[in-house]
Amino acid sequence: MSQAAAPAQSSPWRATVATLFPEMFPGPLGVSLAGDALKQGIWALDTIAIRDFGIGRHRTVDDTPAGGGAGMVMRADVVNAALDSATALNGDSPLLYMSPRGEPLTQGIARELAEGPGVVILAGRFEGIDERVIAHRRLREISIGDYVLSGGELAAMVLIDSVVRLLPGVIGKSESLAEESFEAGLLEYPHYTRPRDWEGLPIPDVLLSGDHAKIAAWRRTQAEQLTRIRRPDLWARHPAKKA
Amino acid sequence: MSQAAAPAQSSPWRATVATLFPEMFPGPLGVSLAGDALKQGIWALDTIAIRDFGIGRHRTVDDTPAGGGAGMVMRADVVNAALDSATALNGDSPLLYMSPRGEPLTQGIARELAEGPGVVILAGRFEGIDERVIAHRRLREISIGDYVLSGGELAAMVLIDSVVRLLPGVIGKSESLAEESFEAGLLEYPHYTRPRDWEGLPIPDVLLSGDHAKIAAWRRTQAEQLTRIRRPDLWARHPAKKA
Repeated sequence: MSQAAAPAQSSPWRATVATLFPEMFPGPLGVSLAGDALKQGIWALDTIAIRDFGIGRHRTVDDTPAGGGAGMVMRADVVNAALDSATALNGDSPLLYMSPRGEPLTQGIARELAEGPGVVILAGRFEGIDERVIAHRRLREISIGDYVLSGGELAAMVLIDSVVRLLPGVIGKSESLAEESFEAGLLEYPHYTRPRDWEGLPIPDVLLSGDHAKIAAWRRTQAEQLTRIRRPDLWARHPAKKA
Repeated sequence: MSQAAAPAQSSPWRATVATLFPEMFPGPLGVSLAGDALKQGIWALDTIAIRDFGIGRHRTVDDTPAGGGAGMVMRADVVNAALDSATALNGDSPLLYMSPRGEPLTQGIARELAEGPGVVILAGRFEGIDERVIAHRRLREISIGDYVLSGGELAAMVLIDSVVRLLPGVIGKSESLAEESFEAGLLEYPHYTRPRDWEGLPIPDVLLSGDHAKIAAWRRTQAEQLTRIRRPDLWARHPAKKA
């Protein structure tokens, strides 16, 4: 207490994942952009092994579904104990459950999570988890898309990667973030690089003109056209629609 | 030639991924459901290291964007050579490019791909890849959701996992597949298992009634309500909407 405080350091953005397969982590998140940021301490990762909270000698984590049906359901009591352990490490972060029934993950949600202290993520397996633990813990259910995976681990990695790359210091140039897909509610315009001619296909003249205003206008038009054609659902919500 | 042919065996569903980070694979796909199926030979995985096709002594794979801007763009000639190598291994499969600009991955696309021989997937990094190789190779651009990742590798794993679990023999009971989210255009109904009472929250009575018709009706209603409330976009396309 008599010592001078160390220079203020912001604590890293913290991801805590409760899973039956902790050995999957960091996996792809330990490589390249996310991996470098992990090594630099920009973010931190813990895993909680749900199996450690299983019942009895066999550490049972699941049981047959009430009302019958195929598959197995993860027990509310086991998951709840795992979540207690996760929140003991990472108490200020929102509790998420990766599930195809959840709110679709968007770039906006990734940005929102990047501004917070971190995430606690429950990655399920089998048919799903007992609904009562979702209600009791008020888990925010998040879906990475309209398809089914064999478990929530890959979905958790996707969510974490989408957030980590937005943390300050992870991507060098912030312009890279400002112009990419979804940041302006549009898909990204097409890219070209050397060679200038390839397989008889030239780089569009405008991009070689050196006229920055013309280039910006061309890219904007391309992004709008691409969005209109490929994603009428996104385009319908875009202000440029009326233009 | 004089030997009797071995018993006819169908060749495995084959995923070939062109990536700058082959060390990420199989990663999470080598564990649990997908990993067991990989070991059983139900599916096969190859990686193509794009770096091997880089230009010059430094094996350069990217260059600055034509027209300026932040970030780097993967060269068309390098990517094309990597794709040649991928299709030499896996020539009958569709060529996919994981990109936030692509067609959204759905359970329907996963089913369609599960019925084919496999996939060749280009996983990009940096700002993106030169548009000309997308056009020249007629790559099918697929997006796993409306957010941006640090590269296509996690997206490729998500796509592969969504397909592999649908391959015959991967999930024991086919009923598990028939009742899950999206298979009937609905989100999945809630699950419950033992204990019967947990934290003062009981399992809904109907599920303990033993009346299979009532249970099926309750589950159907729950799935419809959940879809209507959480995903009006899915519900709008559902035939039960009129009921």
